[in-house]
Amino acid sequence: MSPKTLKIDKLPTIRRLPAYLQILRALSAKGEEFVSSAFLADRMQIEAILVRKDLELTGISGTPRVGFRVRDLVTAIEKFLGWGRVLDTCLVGAGQLGAALLGHRELNQFGIRIVAAFDTDPEKIGSTLHGVTVFPLSRIEELVKRLTILLAIVCVPADVAQAVADQLVQAGIQAIWMFSSVNVTVPEHVIFQREDLLSGLAVLCARVARSGPTGLST
Amino acid sequence: MSPKTLKIDKLPTIRRLPAYLQILRALSAKGEEFVSSAFLADRMQIEAILVRKDLELTGISGTPRVGFRVRDLVTAIEKFLGWGRVLDTCLVGAGQLGAALLGHRELNQFGIRIVAAFDTDPEKIGSTLHGVTVFPLSRIEELVKRLTILLAIVCVPADVAQAVADQLVQAGIQAIWMFSSVNVTVPEHVIFQREDLLSGLAVLCARVARSGPTGLST
Repeated sequence: MSPKTLKIDKLPTIRRLPAYLQILRALSAKGEEFVSSAFLADRMQIEAILVRKDLELTGISGTPRVGFRVRDLVTAIEKFLGWGRVLDTCLVGAGQLGAALLGHRELNQFGIRIVAAFDTDPEKIGSTLHGVTVFPLSRIEELVKRLTILLAIVCVPADVAQAVADQLVQAGIQAIWMFSSVNVTVPEHVIFQREDLLSGLAVLCARVARSGPTGLST
Repeated sequence: MSPKTLKIDKLPTIRRLPAYLQILRALSAKGEEFVSSAFLADRMQIEAILVRKDLELTGISGTPRVGFRVRDLVTAIEKFLGWGRVLDTCLVGAGQLGAALLGHRELNQFGIRIVAAFDTDPEKIGSTLHGVTVFPLSRIEELVKRLTILLAIVCVPADVAQAVADQLVQAGIQAIWMFSSVNVTVPEHVIFQREDLLSGLAVLCARVARSGPTGLST
């Protein structure tokens, strides 16, 4: 694998890595030294062969009848995900979803350090949210540059998402994690990941709508 | 397509439907009567052929050189997603993410009506969140049955996710929308959709980790 790119067929594996990490860390906390792919498969609810394929990506292979060394796996996954590198990050849109993300205790496992928040609401500007100061959105370019912020977590309404993305790109942002149900355009050199909470709900509702009047389709 | 099941290859389409809806509603609000697949493709950042395939699922086909009737598309997508059917819903875990979801103004476009929230925090129990009363988690079975709650939105820590799912299944819940980075097991008749916010972040961080010291991989 080229060091610069991630192949698209690896994405499902990468999406599962945080779940592996949580299971492995719990095992480690209990003092377990080894884990089998069968155990991980059961906890992840996927096939053992897929577990072995997933873990191959991190460069760790198990020993027959012994399994994987828990500590090695934790280290390898953390390294794969860029653990150890601190990502100075800003939050754009300090609403409830933004506050929820800021308060997410697992963000720091990815090295995410939120150094500034931005909003347009005069009542929020100047206040602090989980210890982070909320600045006016108009200062975003200046502060992203001055604080060398690499990543922006964006939780703004759909109608301003593109404008905010443009400002961030202008300021030289490296990566954008955007919570939005609309797409935005960014230049190719900007790493962009969009989360659409409504699309999961759409799948769920489409299923419910097809599940009959009693809701039990058995 | 069977009325009871959704084929797995339709899932990407269904995940895009909320984004179509937002674009179409904005057009409708501006008084636009027709829309071309080229316009939708540009806004969705996908190929026009894929737009036409997506919209086929809702049963609406366009007219050459005229396009799709905006109003027909809105109605068809809403119907596909179960619009018009009210889904009485509870929120389990009234933390910040739960509050953010409760305050999400677009939930009602799916007919989601939150009728109760549950938490174990004595400070939250008895309070109201966006007008919804927070009950003790111990009353979940009783209230899900009594209020005939169909859907549960679950935002609880990973270590209690399975126990909460079990209680909901016991109470006869029809569908669970769970925000968690760990998997849980539910019987087949329960519609289950899991959102893992950390998995998107993992993909982003893995990309950033491979983007070189300056972060610009051009």
